[in-house]
Amino acid sequence: MRIIVDGFGGDNAPKEILLGCAQAMEELGVEIALVGQKEKLEACAAENGLAGQLSKMEIIPCQDVLTMEDEPGSILKEKSESSMAVGLRALAQGQGDAFASAGNSGALTVGATMIVKRMKGVRRVAFAPVLPHVKGFFMISDAGASVECRPEMLVQFGLMGSVYMEKVMGVKSPRVGLVNVGTEAHKGDELRQKTYQLLSGCGEINFVGNVEPRDIPYGGCDVAVADGFAGNIVLKLYEGTALAIMGMVKDVFQKSLKNKLAAAMIYSDLQGLKKTMDYNTYGGAPIIGAAKPVFKMHGNAKAPAVKNALGLVRGCTESGYIDQIARALAGMAGERGARE
Amino acid sequence: MRIIVDGFGGDNAPKEILLGCAQAMEELGVEIALVGQKEKLEACAAENGLAGQLSKMEIIPCQDVLTMEDEPGSILKEKSESSMAVGLRALAQGQGDAFASAGNSGALTVGATMIVKRMKGVRRVAFAPVLPHVKGFFMISDAGASVECRPEMLVQFGLMGSVYMEKVMGVKSPRVGLVNVGTEAHKGDELRQKTYQLLSGCGEINFVGNVEPRDIPYGGCDVAVADGFAGNIVLKLYEGTALAIMGMVKDVFQKSLKNKLAAAMIYSDLQGLKKTMDYNTYGGAPIIGAAKPVFKMHGNAKAPAVKNALGLVRGCTESGYIDQIARALAGMAGERGARE
Repeated sequence: MRIIVDGFGGDNAPKEILLGCAQAMEELGVEIALVGQKEKLEACAAENGLAGQLSKMEIIPCQDVLTMEDEPGSILKEKSESSMAVGLRALAQGQGDAFASAGNSGALTVGATMIVKRMKGVRRVAFAPVLPHVKGFFMISDAGASVECRPEMLVQFGLMGSVYMEKVMGVKSPRVGLVNVGTEAHKGDELRQKTYQLLSGCGEINFVGNVEPRDIPYGGCDVAVADGFAGNIVLKLYEGTALAIMGMVKDVFQKSLKNKLAAAMIYSDLQGLKKTMDYNTYGGAPIIGAAKPVFKMHGNAKAPAVKNALGLVRGCTESGYIDQIARALAGMAGERGARE
Repeated sequence: MRIIVDGFGGDNAPKEILLGCAQAMEELGVEIALVGQKEKLEACAAENGLAGQLSKMEIIPCQDVLTMEDEPGSILKEKSESSMAVGLRALAQGQGDAFASAGNSGALTVGATMIVKRMKGVRRVAFAPVLPHVKGFFMISDAGASVECRPEMLVQFGLMGSVYMEKVMGVKSPRVGLVNVGTEAHKGDELRQKTYQLLSGCGEINFVGNVEPRDIPYGGCDVAVADGFAGNIVLKLYEGTALAIMGMVKDVFQKSLKNKLAAAMIYSDLQGLKKTMDYNTYGGAPIIGAAKPVFKMHGNAKAPAVKNALGLVRGCTESGYIDQIARALAGMAGERGARE
């Protein structure tokens, strides 16, 4: 298993990426092909005592970096020699089994679609992060790849997400819910009403109907189906609200000596709570629907989160989820009978 | 000031509504006209020692109740004799200065539009709750009245929300933000792109550009402009996530005797935190754009929240915000010069 990693994606590149890759190589037994400016990677490795580890990695050289400020489409034009673009081309050409980047999600989505290409029959790829809720975890599909969608696309997001949650995350018969403003079938706009009908008739998945956003934090579904606009709102508001409230709790605990003492008394439980709601726990987001495994690591991931993400990438890739999605799509298209 | 109150709206009607009205009458000096089944209201008052208070209220009699399960449109048809419908007709006919209900928001929005009618020039009313954030409060406009919108409607939601926040809530030059998936002008779908352009050219408001959902809990704007679909997602996910995390914190504190002791040490600060994030603090949501003041109280409001809401209704109605909105709309339509 060889994972191609964008050495210059994310807030903490290249140091934390390099560190995380070194740990993944040692602890998870994966091979790493690191994409980036060779001199900078070598200098960073030397500074951090990782020269030995770096020497065991392949370096796929490139000269440019795609930043968070770059337009998604730039990956095909002025940033076509960036570490992200070069890494995706390496994946497409078979120089590795999967690609992971902590860089610009929009560009990664465009690159997955245009460089790695979509699987046969997939209308749009989905950016599909797995996030914690109070009792476990769930996926948003799509959380931002396509802001304007048709009902057929949302149905595919649900199907692809369901396969991923079952085959990779081990959720049995994942509950697929449509993010909507009410539970009844007629709720929401035309997109939601049509999608509800299509999902209801889709025998390939366990559709549990509309899910109201207030039920999402309590585990209202395993796969939250949304167009990329609504899904991105859910992703960002969920993260923002969780962080804001945890921050307020932290402020209470730091307010006085007495409060600090109280915090010390329940330290381990508070750490447990923090860990439950840490979006790094589940390591990353697949770009589902791409013809080969492409993963987004969290933009502020540090070495342990990078290592966790690469562990997930390995698990995913070994699970063969892409073939499973292909089979499910074929089944939905009514081709199953002819194939079997 | 006479406020017409739906005696049978919400989870805790009629008891908590009656109690809250009695308190509002005594403490806020408002007159109350309570809409509902006379016998039930009298029986409830007798049971709770409020017969004296009820005798000081006008009772607007009706026979039916509109529930949370009823379709919004039912207020004009099979539920046209419900307490909500009868109360809105009483407002339209001038039997009071404002109407408040803790009942079905969808039906209240339809009733405000079709019974009370919209202000001249208003394309759609907005359901516009005021909610807490870590440093203060903000409004979502629209949070669910219209799930399908055109850009011109969103601009009006921003303008009406801005006037309300300034005149009623005392926010100077409210920062109006468009809920979107990124801060740049070109982000989002076609609706967002066009709305951004229109808002940018609207001299009547302090448009601060797109607001990303992750900044909303930190006070990223004073008025969060959204179509009713996106706004409803923000409202419900925000409430749900806050409740879920506060619930997890509470669970930590009840886990053991030691943890309970720690909780006791910081009890008052925790109560302060809880109060900061309590959506009942700001009492209710106006249906802005209606020709007369119509308010939604929180569905699970108890007597103190009902009293607070009625205090807000009084303040709003006295502020003359509807005339202010009319002036702002006229100004936006370029009529200001002709009028002044």
